[in-house]
Amino acid sequence: MIRLFIPHDLGPGAELALDRGQSHYLASVMRQGVGDEIALFNGRDGEWRATVTAVTKRAVGLRAEAPMRPQASGPDLDLVVALVKRGRLETIVEKATELGARRVRLTVTERTNADRARPERLAAIATEAAEQTGRLDVPQVTEPLKLGKLIEGWEPGRRLLFCDEAGGAPTVLEALKAEEPGPWAILIGPEGGFSPGERQMLRALPYAVAASLGPRILRADTAAISALTLWQAALGDWTVAAAP
Amino acid sequence: MIRLFIPHDLGPGAELALDRGQSHYLASVMRQGVGDEIALFNGRDGEWRATVTAVTKRAVGLRAEAPMRPQASGPDLDLVVALVKRGRLETIVEKATELGARRVRLTVTERTNADRARPERLAAIATEAAEQTGRLDVPQVTEPLKLGKLIEGWEPGRRLLFCDEAGGAPTVLEALKAEEPGPWAILIGPEGGFSPGERQMLRALPYAVAASLGPRILRADTAAISALTLWQAALGDWTVAAAP
Repeated sequence: MIRLFIPHDLGPGAELALDRGQSHYLASVMRQGVGDEIALFNGRDGEWRATVTAVTKRAVGLRAEAPMRPQASGPDLDLVVALVKRGRLETIVEKATELGARRVRLTVTERTNADRARPERLAAIATEAAEQTGRLDVPQVTEPLKLGKLIEGWEPGRRLLFCDEAGGAPTVLEALKAEEPGPWAILIGPEGGFSPGERQMLRALPYAVAASLGPRILRADTAAISALTLWQAALGDWTVAAAP
Repeated sequence: MIRLFIPHDLGPGAELALDRGQSHYLASVMRQGVGDEIALFNGRDGEWRATVTAVTKRAVGLRAEAPMRPQASGPDLDLVVALVKRGRLETIVEKATELGARRVRLTVTERTNADRARPERLAAIATEAAEQTGRLDVPQVTEPLKLGKLIEGWEPGRRLLFCDEAGGAPTVLEALKAEEPGPWAILIGPEGGFSPGERQMLRALPYAVAASLGPRILRADTAAISALTLWQAALGDWTVAAAP
C-alpha cells in the first residue's frame, strides 16, 4: 500500500487535499484514481487508511477512513554526523531514517571538507525514506553546527557513542554491553577523522563511550549505517524479533 | 599513503609499469612524481612500499622497496545478493568490500526486477573500495546465477544466513549466538522480498539460518550493510577491537 506523509490532521472522516507534488505523484506516477486506498501519516495521529475522493490535474482529494496503527516512534536516538559530500550525506539521511534514528544532526569538525548541506533536499529524502520504510514519523534533519557548539549545548542525560577509528577502543557491542537504553546519540566523524584535539575533548566527556568499527577504514556512510545497526541490535528496537 | 591494487608480482626491487588508467590517476589526478612513495598490493604478495621511478604521459614506473604487511584476508564470508537497480548494486559492492566480504555473488530470484549487471564496472568499484579501505585483497564479483542454480551448486560446509523479512525469525545476533565462525554466506533478497516458494525452499536447507533485520522495511543496500555488520560483530573480524 502506498504511504504518504502529510501535514494535515488525521481523524475519522477527515477530508484533505494534497499539494501539487504529492498529487502529481499519486495521480500521474502511481496512477491512483477515485476509490483507491492509500495510507497516511503525519507524525502525530498514527497511520490511517484513506480513500481517494477526487483527482484533478492539480489536486488529489483524500478522506481518512480508519486508523491502522497508533502513533509510535522508535528509540530516542540521534545520529550526529560531520558534513560529507552530497551523495554520501544523502545516503546517510536515507539510511538513518530506515534504521530508526529520531534526528539527524549535522556538524562541522576541524577536518570536515564539505561546508554546505541542502536542508530542504535532505528533509525530502528523510520523508520519502520514512514513507518507504514504514515509520510513523520523519526524522528531523538539523542545520549544521560546529562540533564545539554542539557539545556546549549537549542535552543533559543523553549518552554519546563516539566512533573512534584511532584504535584501542572496544568494539561497539563490547562498549554497549553494560549500557542502558534511553536518550543516546551516535557521532560519526568526517572521512579525514577527528583531529587529536577533538578526540581528546570527546574522550573526556563523561557521557561519551568510544568504540571501534572493525579493522578496515570505513567511509562515513558505511560507518553511520554500521553504528546505527549495532546500536539498534544492542539497545534499540532490533533487540527483539519482529512479530510474525 | 596512496594504495594501488596491481596485477604484477611484488617482491624486493620488483620494477613495474602501471597501465594507462592507473598512470593517469597517479600522475595527473594525485600529482605524484619521481621519488614519491605509494603502497602496492596484488592479493597475493602482501602490501609493499614502492617508489615512483619514472613518469611519462602514458606510463608511471614503480619499484617495490620493502614489504609493509604480509598477505592476509578476512573471514571466509560471501555476500549473495539479488540484482537490484544499478546505483544500489554499486553501493552494495562498495560496502561489501569495506565490510570484509570475500566474494559478492549475484543472484536472480523470482521477484528480481533487474536482470543485468555490469561485471567490469562492479569489479572496478570493488578494486577502488579495497584500495581505500586498506584490504589486501579485492572481493570477486561473480556473474548473476538463478537462485535455484546457486543453491543446487552450494558448497558443502558453507552456512547461510538468510535475511527473512516475513517475520517470526530471531534477530541476527540471536540467530548467530550458537553458531561458529567458518565458511558463511549472507543472502539478501530483492526489494520485493522472496516468493513464498523460495522462502519455503530456503527455510528447509539444513545449512541455512533465518534472521530478521528489525521492525522496519529496509532497502536491499541497507539490509546488506546491516547484515554484514552484524555477522562481522558476531562471528567475524569485528569481534576483537583493533590494536591501537
